[in-house]
Amino acid sequence: MRILLYRSDGQTGPWAEDLARALPGVDTLAWQEGDLPAACDYAVLWNPSAGLLAQLDKVKAVFLMGAGADALLKFGDALPSVPIVRLGDAGMAVQMAEYVSYATLRYFRRFDEYEEQARHGLWAPLPPHVKEDFTVGVMGLGKLGLRVVDTLRGFGFPVRGWSRTQKDIQGVACFAGMETLDDFLRGTRVLVSLLPLTPETNNLLDRRRLATLPQGAYIINVARGAQLAEPDLLTLIRAGHIAGATLDVFRNEPLPAPHPFWDEPRITITPHISAVTIRAEAVRQIAFKIAAFEANEPVDDIVDRNLGY
Amino acid sequence: MRILLYRSDGQTGPWAEDLARALPGVDTLAWQEGDLPAACDYAVLWNPSAGLLAQLDKVKAVFLMGAGADALLKFGDALPSVPIVRLGDAGMAVQMAEYVSYATLRYFRRFDEYEEQARHGLWAPLPPHVKEDFTVGVMGLGKLGLRVVDTLRGFGFPVRGWSRTQKDIQGVACFAGMETLDDFLRGTRVLVSLLPLTPETNNLLDRRRLATLPQGAYIINVARGAQLAEPDLLTLIRAGHIAGATLDVFRNEPLPAPHPFWDEPRITITPHISAVTIRAEAVRQIAFKIAAFEANEPVDDIVDRNLGY
Ligand SMILES: NC(=O)c1ccc[n+]([C@@H]2O[C@H](COP(=O)([O-])OP(=O)(O)OC[C@H]3O[C@@H](n4cnc5c(N)ncnc54)[C@H](OP(=O)(O)O)[C@@H]3O)[C@@H](O)[C@H]2O)c1
Ligand SMILES: NC(=O)c1ccc[n+]([C@@H]2O[C@H](COP(=O)([O-])OP(=O)(O)OC[C@H]3O[C@@H](n4cnc5c(N)ncnc54)[C@H](OP(=O)(O)O)[C@@H]3O)[C@@H](O)[C@H]2O)c1
Repeated sequence: MRILLYRSDGQTGPWAEDLARALPGVDTLAWQEGDLPAACDYAVLWNPSAGLLAQLDKVKAVFLMGAGADALLKFGDALPSVPIVRLGDAGMAVQMAEYVSYATLRYFRRFDEYEEQARHGLWAPLPPHVKEDFTVGVMGLGKLGLRVVDTLRGFGFPVRGWSRTQKDIQGVACFAGMETLDDFLRGTRVLVSLLPLTPETNNLLDRRRLATLPQGAYIINVARGAQLAEPDLLTLIRAGHIAGATLDVFRNEPLPAPHPFWDEPRITITPHISAVTIRAEAVRQIAFKIAAFEANEPVDDIVDRNLGY
Repeated sequence: MRILLYRSDGQTGPWAEDLARALPGVDTLAWQEGDLPAACDYAVLWNPSAGLLAQLDKVKAVFLMGAGADALLKFGDALPSVPIVRLGDAGMAVQMAEYVSYATLRYFRRFDEYEEQARHGLWAPLPPHVKEDFTVGVMGLGKLGLRVVDTLRGFGFPVRGWSRTQKDIQGVACFAGMETLDDFLRGTRVLVSLLPLTPETNNLLDRRRLATLPQGAYIINVARGAQLAEPDLLTLIRAGHIAGATLDVFRNEPLPAPHPFWDEPRITITPHISAVTIRAEAVRQIAFKIAAFEANEPVDDIVDRNLGY
């Protein structure tokens, strides 16, 4: 069996080693821009290039080294008609729970204000916020969103969730579909996005929707930058309607300099690190799924091209 | 029934109202320095003054508005020989879980470094720390410590605990007694104190013990400032052995200005806010315990004067 490996950063070496260990006897081929096509059974990719697509029409499946399929699906009709398989959790869900808990607690417990006070040598307890005013609204109740919901519930936050299809989660107010979005937003103090980037979610958080959130709302975007209208967020923060944001993803990454986000103290920026692929977990999962393909058994996390995730 | 109320800050009004609502027919008396003694059945106190002690020898029990008894027990032989009852959890445990999770995640996920980078407009993912190197060691496995242990386990951190008497907690390496302290410290990357302040724990974290922690260890003190030898912590941070600390409590509060902690960027200071008394919960608990005293039923959270907590 031969597996084609590609990463836009060229770092395929450790993946080749781990895959060889997980699937004894397997042959890996690190493809680079300009290489000729070579027959392969499977492809394992991160940030594929257009030049690679022609290589993919004869593989049995394409595996992604991440949870999002948007970077591949954007090729649309040029895509080969083979199954595309994304990572499911693979160590990312707990990282998301950590990141979102941290950002939520920082705002809820006023740690940002305490830091500012300490910089000025000021000892001054502030009135604590109360949980009843801190409903967390999680958009996207998939592998990552569900784990985040669970962790925030554990801290006692009121939690609501929004997804495409209706869910039923103990203790969580569940909303489904575009027609419920405004209602969902109206009662959300801390908005977390864990939606995939699709034609429906592109620019979803625009000026009107952000203004639907209550005064003092806080945004945590750990999904994809293009879901958020960046200038609208700035406008609403400067107008005092949105209190601030913690953003891990941006329309253009790396976030260019200059960009007004860098200079806005109410926006916390991290460089797309909220949940990184744990190679060992990812390889274990891919090897397991390859074995399932070979045995003609059902395989999880196959991307639905019509839905876009 | 009459209840004496005292707070060093004078803010007894809301306590009187809440107690009157919780115990219909009760009479409350707000005692102030200089007032004459008055016969009362119970006393409910925060930061008692020496002048108050004479009032307390005829009450049936003294209730504290906090979880720690050190501020009362320090009066030693001058204390009346009536039961002293502290708060048990009463909404503080979840706050401690929030605070300690926040501080641990900030260090583990390198959020402090990302903030520093963002201040310079720098987009640079850092190598993630791994949980195997991040054993959290919780000193004090009481009402607050146990909740913290549980929450950190939920994030997948390896957790160990230290207490006076041996515990048996699923998935947690439990150490008990002074003779195990060095072993406990040697394997602890993030040290959390949730110990009461007693003669045994006073100055417990001195230079030798802090140096027993591994290189790169991090300190979170949410218990009492006097447990930590402040100059020794500074020395070990400056020597590069301890990576930093998040401190909510100090030997002298408010932390005086000047104090070298204010100027040490590796020390995060909060003004004793890690877990504040939730008056509604506290009053509910005190009312319940008064009913138990009146009915001659057993009462939880009575302080053991010999142990000092
Ligand atoms: N920043 C990072 O480092 C990072 C790391 C990993 C992942 N991510 C992002 O996180 C996203 C979520 O990952 P996941 O593994 O949790 O995905 P998932 O399991 O596929 O879940 C996606 C969720 O979004 C919902 N959804 C999709 N389209 C929707 C729409 N139009 N309206 C309402 N809800 C919609 C889905 O609803 P149904 O349940 O009804 O289908 C589902 O609940 C990924 O797509 C990726 O972009 C970011
Ligand atoms: N910063 C704040 O805002 C704040 C707020 C609330 C409380 N606090 C502090 O937090 C402390 C803990 O509260 P809690 O309600 O969890 O108390 P607790 O239920 O009485 O628990 C105390 C724990 O410490 C252990 N311990 C006591 N002396 C020890 C010793 N010499 N060696 C080893 N372990 C010892 C006890 O061991 P055993 O289980 O074996 O008895 C017990 O596990 C309070 O005393 C208070 O000072 C601070």
